[in-house]
Amino acid sequence: MNFGSDNTAGAHPAVLRALVECNEGAMASYGADPVSQRAEAAIREVLGWPEAVVRFVATGTAANALVCAQFAPSYGRIYCHDAAHIHRDECAAPEFYSHGAKLVPLAGEAGRIAPQGLAGAIGFGAAGSLNDGANALVSITNATEWGTVYAPDEVAALADVTHAAGLALHMDGARFANAVAGLGCAPADLLRGVDALCFGGTKNGALAAEAVVIADPARAQGLDYRRKQSGHVWSKQRFLAAQMLALVTDGLWLDLARRANAMAAALAQAIVAAGGALVVPVEANEVFARIPAHVHALLGAHGVGHSLWQEQPPAAGEPVVIRLVTSWATHEDDVARFRHLLDQG
Amino acid sequence: MNFGSDNTAGAHPAVLRALVECNEGAMASYGADPVSQRAEAAIREVLGWPEAVVRFVATGTAANALVCAQFAPSYGRIYCHDAAHIHRDECAAPEFYSHGAKLVPLAGEAGRIAPQGLAGAIGFGAAGSLNDGANALVSITNATEWGTVYAPDEVAALADVTHAAGLALHMDGARFANAVAGLGCAPADLLRGVDALCFGGTKNGALAAEAVVIADPARAQGLDYRRKQSGHVWSKQRFLAAQMLALVTDGLWLDLARRANAMAAALAQAIVAAGGALVVPVEANEVFARIPAHVHALLGAHGVGHSLWQEQPPAAGEPVVIRLVTSWATHEDDVARFRHLLDQG
Amino acid sequence: MNFGSDNTAGAHPAVLRALVECNEGAMASYGADPVSQRAEAAIREVLGWPEAVVRFVATGTAANALVCAQFAPSYGRIYCHDAAHIHRDECAAPEFYSHGAKLVPLAGEAGRIAPQGLAGAIGFGAAGSLNDGANALVSITNATEWGTVYAPDEVAALADVTHAAGLALHMDGARFANAVAGLGCAPADLLRGVDALCFGGTKNGALAAEAVVIADPARAQGLDYRRKQSGHVWSKQRFLAAQMLALVTDGLWLDLARRANAMAAALAQAIVAAGGALVVPVEANEVFARIPAHVHALLGAHGVGHSLWQEQPPAAGEPVVIRLVTSWATHEDDVARFRHLLDQG
Amino acid sequence: MNFGSDNTAGAHPAVLRALVECNEGAMASYGADPVSQRAEAAIREVLGWPEAVVRFVATGTAANALVCAQFAPSYGRIYCHDAAHIHRDECAAPEFYSHGAKLVPLAGEAGRIAPQGLAGAIGFGAAGSLNDGANALVSITNATEWGTVYAPDEVAALADVTHAAGLALHMDGARFANAVAGLGCAPADLLRGVDALCFGGTKNGALAAEAVVIADPARAQGLDYRRKQSGHVWSKQRFLAAQMLALVTDGLWLDLARRANAMAAALAQAIVAAGGALVVPVEANEVFARIPAHVHALLGAHGVGHSLWQEQPPAAGEPVVIRLVTSWATHEDDVARFRHLLDQG
Repeated sequence: MNFGSDNTAGAHPAVLRALVECNEGAMASYGADPVSQRAEAAIREVLGWPEAVVRFVATGTAANALVCAQFAPSYGRIYCHDAAHIHRDECAAPEFYSHGAKLVPLAGEAGRIAPQGLAGAIGFGAAGSLNDGANALVSITNATEWGTVYAPDEVAALADVTHAAGLALHMDGARFANAVAGLGCAPADLLRGVDALCFGGTKNGALAAEAVVIADPARAQGLDYRRKQSGHVWSKQRFLAAQMLALVTDGLWLDLARRANAMAAALAQAIVAAGGALVVPVEANEVFARIPAHVHALLGAHGVGHSLWQEQPPAAGEPVVIRLVTSWATHEDDVARFRHLLDQG
Repeated sequence: MNFGSDNTAGAHPAVLRALVECNEGAMASYGADPVSQRAEAAIREVLGWPEAVVRFVATGTAANALVCAQFAPSYGRIYCHDAAHIHRDECAAPEFYSHGAKLVPLAGEAGRIAPQGLAGAIGFGAAGSLNDGANALVSITNATEWGTVYAPDEVAALADVTHAAGLALHMDGARFANAVAGLGCAPADLLRGVDALCFGGTKNGALAAEAVVIADPARAQGLDYRRKQSGHVWSKQRFLAAQMLALVTDGLWLDLARRANAMAAALAQAIVAAGGALVVPVEANEVFARIPAHVHALLGAHGVGHSLWQEQPPAAGEPVVIRLVTSWATHEDDVARFRHLLDQG
Repeated sequence: MNFGSDNTAGAHPAVLRALVECNEGAMASYGADPVSQRAEAAIREVLGWPEAVVRFVATGTAANALVCAQFAPSYGRIYCHDAAHIHRDECAAPEFYSHGAKLVPLAGEAGRIAPQGLAGAIGFGAAGSLNDGANALVSITNATEWGTVYAPDEVAALADVTHAAGLALHMDGARFANAVAGLGCAPADLLRGVDALCFGGTKNGALAAEAVVIADPARAQGLDYRRKQSGHVWSKQRFLAAQMLALVTDGLWLDLARRANAMAAALAQAIVAAGGALVVPVEANEVFARIPAHVHALLGAHGVGHSLWQEQPPAAGEPVVIRLVTSWATHEDDVARFRHLLDQG
Repeated sequence: MNFGSDNTAGAHPAVLRALVECNEGAMASYGADPVSQRAEAAIREVLGWPEAVVRFVATGTAANALVCAQFAPSYGRIYCHDAAHIHRDECAAPEFYSHGAKLVPLAGEAGRIAPQGLAGAIGFGAAGSLNDGANALVSITNATEWGTVYAPDEVAALADVTHAAGLALHMDGARFANAVAGLGCAPADLLRGVDALCFGGTKNGALAAEAVVIADPARAQGLDYRRKQSGHVWSKQRFLAAQMLALVTDGLWLDLARRANAMAAALAQAIVAAGGALVVPVEANEVFARIPAHVHALLGAHGVGHSLWQEQPPAAGEPVVIRLVTSWATHEDDVARFRHLLDQG
C-alpha cells in the first residue's frame, strides 16, 4: 500500500502499448510526425478549444514554467495560492524561465483563491509604482494542492477578475483529469476564461507527458522557441505525443481519474470511521486528514506509504495530519487492506 | 530510405522492453528508485569513472545546457568549434541556462578544434579586460558535427591546454557511442582530461534519454537543483534511467553504433563509386559528400531522405554537398538499395 | 516641508565640490583611477574591514541585487524580512540578477527578523527536497524599513544562526549611516558576522553612489564581471568614487546621519504632542505614526510631504498611519514649522 | 598627451555647473522631477523625434543592453558587426539582459555592415528551424568602433533591409555626436528608419549619462520596469538628466564633438606625415593607423597614451597598428606636441 504520491505508480498499460505501436519506421523529428499531429488534434477536441496551440513536454514543472515565461515578463507579477505547486515545489522554475517574475502568494481556504481576495491583491499591484513590477498572470491549480476543486463557476469568476484587470489566467492542471472527473462536468465548462492549461498526463497514467495548451494562438507566439531553448523539444517527439494520445483516446484519462477519485473517497471513509477527521473535503484523489496518534503508528508499523503534512514533527500521543494520494493504479484491494488495518487499530 | 538524421528512427526494441519491465509496481519518485541507481552505477562502470555523478535528462540540448551552466557563470566564456551543436543548433540554450555566457566559436578542420588554436583563443580571453568576460569552459563534440572523431590523444591534448589555463573540458557526446565504436578504444581512453560528458542515448536507440556525467562530484554541486529548476527531473524517473540502462547493458550501445558506422561507410563507398567526393573522412555515422547534380536529382526523384549541406541553394548542373546520417535502425537493405540506385544513375 | 523620502533632497555641497575637484585632467577609466583607490581604502578603514573588496555603483537596487547574485545561485533561497526593500521595492531585481533565486519573506516585529524565527525558517528549507531550492543567503536591512535598528548583538546573533546553517549574511545598508549614528557604536561593531554590506551614499547626501563591500575577498570573485555585465561599471568611475570618498572623509557621513536622526526625533515629539502615536520606536530617520484625522487633514492642507502607510484608503474621521522621513537636508526650521502647524491644529 | 580613450577625460564644466544648479531644494524622485522632464523634451526636439520615449541611464552598456532586451526575446537573434561594442566589449550584457539572445556577428569593411551582407544573414536566420532562434534586432554603431560613420543613406538602406524582414533597428550612439558632427547633417537625417538610439553623453563630456531613446512609444512598453529591475533608475534622477540637458542645450554636444573630430583629423595628418598609414579613414574622433616601429617607440618613450590595436604583440622593427582617440577635452596644444614629437622622430 503506497499512498505517498500519484507519481510512484508506473504507466498505464495502454500508454506503454502506444509507445510500442508508434515505434515502427522512420518519422519526421521535432514534432512534425503524424502521431504528434493526431495527439494535438485530439486534445483540442477533448478540451473544446478548436483553435488552441498544443505542445508536449515531459514534466509539469516545465509546462508551468513555460506558461509563466510566455505570459509574464521578467518584471511581471504572478498571483497564485500560497500552497501553489509553482510557488512551493518547483525550485523557482517560474522565476528561472521568466528571468525574475515575482510570485505573489495569496491566502485562500482549502487551496482555493477567492475572487475578492484576488481582486484586492491585483488592485494593490496595479496601483503600485515601478517598485512592484507589472501585473501579468494569475495561476490557479485544479484540482488544487489540497485535493479540492474549483467548480466551473468559480473558475469563471476568477477569470472575470483576472481579465478585468488585464491579466491572463493559467490553470495548472497536473490533476485536471481528477477535477473534471470529480465534478462530472465537460472539460470545456471548467476552462471558461482560462488562457492556458497545463494538462497533466504523468499523474494520470503516462510515463512522463504533459501538454501545454494555449487557447488563443496569438498568445502562443514564441512558445516553440521557448521549449527548444529550454531543452524540452524531443527529437523523437512521437514518444511524448503518443502518451497523451493514448490517455485521451476513448475517455481513458477520465476513467483513470474516476478510479483514483473513488479510491480516495474510500480511504477517507475508512479514516473517518477510525476516528480521523478530514482537514478539507475530498473532492479529487487526495485525502488530508488529522488522525489519532495510534492510527498513525499503525500506518508506520505496516509500512503504508503516506506523507506527513504538518510543519512540526508529531508530538507523542497527539493527532497527526497526513496526506494520502491515490492514482490510476490504486487497487480496491489496497483500499480494503487499508480499511481492515484501521478497523483493527 | 531515410538518411536525413539519426533521430528519425524509433527506439530499439530492447529499450522499449526495458520500459515495460520496469513498469511493475510503485517506486520512489524523482530518481530515488532502484532502476535509476542501477543505471547510474552501470554508466560509471562503462565509462571507467567510478566517482562520477550521473544524471538523466530527456534531450541533448538539456544535457549540454545544464553542463554549460554548471561550469560557466553568466559572465563566462565557452570555447567551442564554430560548427558546434551548442552554438549552432540549440536556440541559445547554453546562454539561457547560464544567464548569458558567451560562446566563442573557433575555426578548425573537419569539425575539430586544434590545441594550438584553442590555446591562442583562450590566451586572448585571459589577457582581456572585464569587457571580455571570464574564461570558463571548453566544449568539444565527439563524434563531431562533421562526423569525424577526436582520437584519445587529441582529446588529452585539448584537455591539457584547457586545464593549463584553468578552464574545464566538456564533451558533447550525442554520438559518443559512434566515436568509441569508430575508434575501437575503451570509453575511458576517450575521456582522459574530460570533466563532463553528455552521454547520448537518443540517437543511439533510446526514445529520449541522455546522461549528464560529471567526473568529479565536487564539481557537480547544485546540478540536481539545476535539473529541477529547469523542469528536467522526471517524477517517474525509472523510465528515463531504464532506457540508458538497456543501452549500456551487454554492450548494446556499441553494437548499435558499430552498425550505424558500418552503414555510413557503405554509403560513402557507394557515393564515391558514383562519382561523388567525401568532404571529410567518414569516421562515425555521418557522410558529407559533394555529389554530381544528376546523382542529387536521383535522390530527390526516389525520395531518399538526406540534408542539403551548403548555405547557397544548388545551382543547375553544379555538384551539391549533402549530408547522410545512419542510425541503429539503418538496414543493409537500405544501403543496398541506395547503392543500386546510384549504380543506375 | 517635504518629509516624503530621503531621496527627494539634493546632494550635500561637499559631495558636489568633490566632483568638481576630481574633474581635472585625464584619469584611467573603469576604476583604475587614484580617486577610486583612495575611496576604496577609506571605506575599508571606516568599516574596520581591512581586507574587504569595495566596489561602487549608482543605486541601492544595483548594490543589493549584485550581492544577491554573488551569494545565491539561481536555485538559491534568500531569507529576508517581509518588509525588506529587496522583496517589496526593487521590482524583483534580486531574482533578475540571480536568475531566479527565491526570496523567502519572514515575519518580525518592527521590521526586524528574530534569530529564532530565522532558525526555524532556514531549518525548514534545509530539510526540504529539491523542490525547495538551496539555502543561500540571509538579508537584513539596517536601519530597517520601519526606521528601527538592529543593535550589534542582534546582528551578531543573526549571523550566528546564519553561519551555523552555512548561509551568508547580507546587510542592506541604504541607511547604514543612520543606524550607526542612532546606536552611537563603531561601524565595525555593527558588522560582526556580516559577509556583505551595501553601504548607502545616496540617502546620506550623495547624488547617486553606493558601495558594495564584501568582507572576504575570496567571496568577491566574479563581482567585477557581474558589475560590468549589468552595466554598472562607469568608465569615468572617479565621479562615483569621489562621492563616497567625500562622505566618509572627516566623518561627514555620520554628521549628516545624526542630523537626520535628530530631525526625525523632533518630528516624532511634535506628533505625539499633537495626539499622534508612534507605530514603532523612532531609532533612525523615519517616523511611522498613527495620527488623528484632523492632523492628517492639516498636513494635506499645508502641502507637507509625507507618505500614507496603510493598505486601505483612510476612512473619514479615522486615524491614519503615515511615514515621515528626514534627510541630511532637513532643516530645524522645517521641523519648527511642522511643530507649529500641529500645535495650531 | 593621453589619446587612450575618450573616457579618460573628465566632464565638461557646463555639465558640472548643471549639477550644481539643479541641486537646490527637494524634487520628486525616480524621474518625476522637472529637470528630467525638460531633458527628455530637449532630446526629443534635438533628435526630431517628437513622440519618442527618452530615458536616462549612467552607462552605454546599460543603455545598449536594455534596448537589446526590449527588442529581443531570450530566443532572439541580434545581428551586429563583428567589431560591435555590444558583441566584443560588454561582457555579454545583451545576453544577460535578454536572458540568452544570440549575437550574430557580421563581417563588413571599416566597421560598417553592408545592406547586402545583412540581408543574406537575416535571410539565413529566417529560413532556419527552431534551432536558430528567431530574428529580432539589427544593431549598428554610429560612429562605428572603427571611427568611421554611416551616412544617412547608408542607415536608411540598412533600415529598409531590417524592416523588410520584420526586425527592428538599433543604433549604438555612444559617439552619435561625433557621427553627426562628422557628417554635418541633421540628427534626424541620421535616424531615418532607426527604432532605438542609445544617445551617448559620457564620451561627449558628461560624467556618466546616456539616453535610451525609442522612437515609437508603443515599442517602449515595459522599458521603465526593465530599468528599475536592473538597478538603473536613480532616485535623484535630476542629476542624470541634468547632464544630458546641459549637453544638448545650445548645441554644446555638437561643438564638443566637432572639436574632438578636428583633433583626430590633425593627429591623423601628423601620423601620415611621419610615415604612418591610416588603416581606415578618419571620419569621427578615432584614428587607426599603422605606424613605423620607431614612431611607436617614440610614443612609448614619451608616455603618449594610446592603444595597441592588433592581436599579436608587436615584432621588433615591424610596423604597429595603434588606436588614438580624442575627446572634448583634447587641446590643440596636445596635438601640436604630438606633431612636434613625430616630426623629431
